Amino acid sequence: MLDLGHRRWAIAEGWIPSQSSFANRALESHETACILNAGDQPAELRITVFFEDREPAGPYRFTIAPRRTLHLRFNDLAKPERIPRDTAYSSVFESDVPVVVQHTRLDSRRPEISLLSTIAYAEG
Amino acid sequence: MLDLGHRRWAIAEGWIPSQSSFANRALESHETACILNAGDQPAELRITVFFEDREPAGPYRFTIAPRRTLHLRFNDLAKPERIPRDTAYSSVFESDVPVVVQHTRLDSRRPEISLLSTIAYAEG
Amino acid sequence: MLDLGHRRWAIAEGWIPSQSSFANRALESHETACILNAGDQPAELRITVFFEDREPAGPYRFTIAPRRTLHLRFNDLAKPERIPRDTAYSSVFESDVPVVVQHTRLDSRRPEISLLSTIAYAEG
Amino acid sequence: MLDLGHRRWAIAEGWIPSQSSFANRALESHETACILNAGDQPAELRITVFFEDREPAGPYRFTIAPRRTLHLRFNDLAKPERIPRDTAYSSVFESDVPVVVQHTRLDSRRPEISLLSTIAYAEG
Repeated sequence: MLDLGHRRWAIAEGWIPSQSSFANRALESHETACILNAGDQPAELRITVFFEDREPAGPYRFTIAPRRTLHLRFNDLAKPERIPRDTAYSSVFESDVPVVVQHTRLDSRRPEISLLSTIAYAEG
Repeated sequence: MLDLGHRRWAIAEGWIPSQSSFANRALESHETACILNAGDQPAELRITVFFEDREPAGPYRFTIAPRRTLHLRFNDLAKPERIPRDTAYSSVFESDVPVVVQHTRLDSRRPEISLLSTIAYAEG
Repeated sequence: MLDLGHRRWAIAEGWIPSQSSFANRALESHETACILNAGDQPAELRITVFFEDREPAGPYRFTIAPRRTLHLRFNDLAKPERIPRDTAYSSVFESDVPVVVQHTRLDSRRPEISLLSTIAYAEG
Repeated sequence: MLDLGHRRWAIAEGWIPSQSSFANRALESHETACILNAGDQPAELRITVFFEDREPAGPYRFTIAPRRTLHLRFNDLAKPERIPRDTAYSSVFESDVPVVVQHTRLDSRRPEISLLSTIAYAEG
């Protein structure tokens, strides 16, 4: 498989609702960055999270093995710090090899679920 | 952090429902432009809003500090004029430094919420 | 306002549900192409609609005045022919001046509404 | 109709819910790749599906006739193997002629439906 994608990506939207109508992980309110490493080298990823009223958090570091996808929940980020709930944020992804990034939210503040998704912004 | 993004963005969709099933700000029907300024310079932003049957409104002016995001609700635009509800519009963003723009709507006309989102159109 | 956008756009998804839970136009199931002509010349638009099992329909022709948006419902297309409901389609937009195109569906087959949106594919 | 699109596309998000609130095909939970071949040559398509913890599946092969769209459900992929439900995946599309790809999910785990959509990532 050839290298596919870009080394820098950004997601301008970010909002993890503090409320969920369901206790199981699948339907808990969450935001996800879906990251595809279609190439034959591991991808070393560095994520920075931006806020409206303070300096950025991070870097959060992850490795994605060759020919693997990672569906990374922003809810699960913990080191160096947790992403606050009910708070506007954005995120930037820097990888040493090309990857592809897509953003989703599952929102279950209300008893029905609602979904959003978009390709992230690619550069470089 | 390096400069990331583009200086001109457009969102062709625009529609703020006049109705909401909830009174709290989080679940009120709204459209948002999420704007990331990942660079080390302030971003001076100029927004123009286009309609189907009249000349454009604006410019609306905002400054985004370095390394900050702004989740700007179209509902809140007031100067030089308010965006009418239940009215088709589009928007163009011009910045003096590169930024990244994503568009979302939370629609609560019905008692459950519905979400949409997309990366905006980038140029320049 | 400078010219902004591209002259050719495509939306690969297309599906107009035949059912709606509401009779009013705003909440009737529909798909829309939101088209922004931010420039100072009229945009002459030519839309072709593709199907899974027959030759394309169209062209559908529209003019968008300078500095105007058009939120065009596929439900309303009538000449040269109506778009069938519950049928997979795609669409291609050709304009003589640059425009920006975004795609949305409001789906009210169920009593709650659901939304999707994406920037269209741009070229040329 | 001129050739339109790209030869390589990727969708980083993938998740087919195992549950549906409805038995009819239209409202069953599903993910779709909408693929437009606007050109005058058949498109020979090769799809590879990536996972978090195993080697990729595929290739899945399809032909799209000239001037046709294909709304391909990931649920229906069967050869060389079925896509597992409730499992994170990504997909890569390689075509011998330019095509346009858009991704959608209809999620009916809950009695109301929820939709997401995005243009896929294009390259080459």
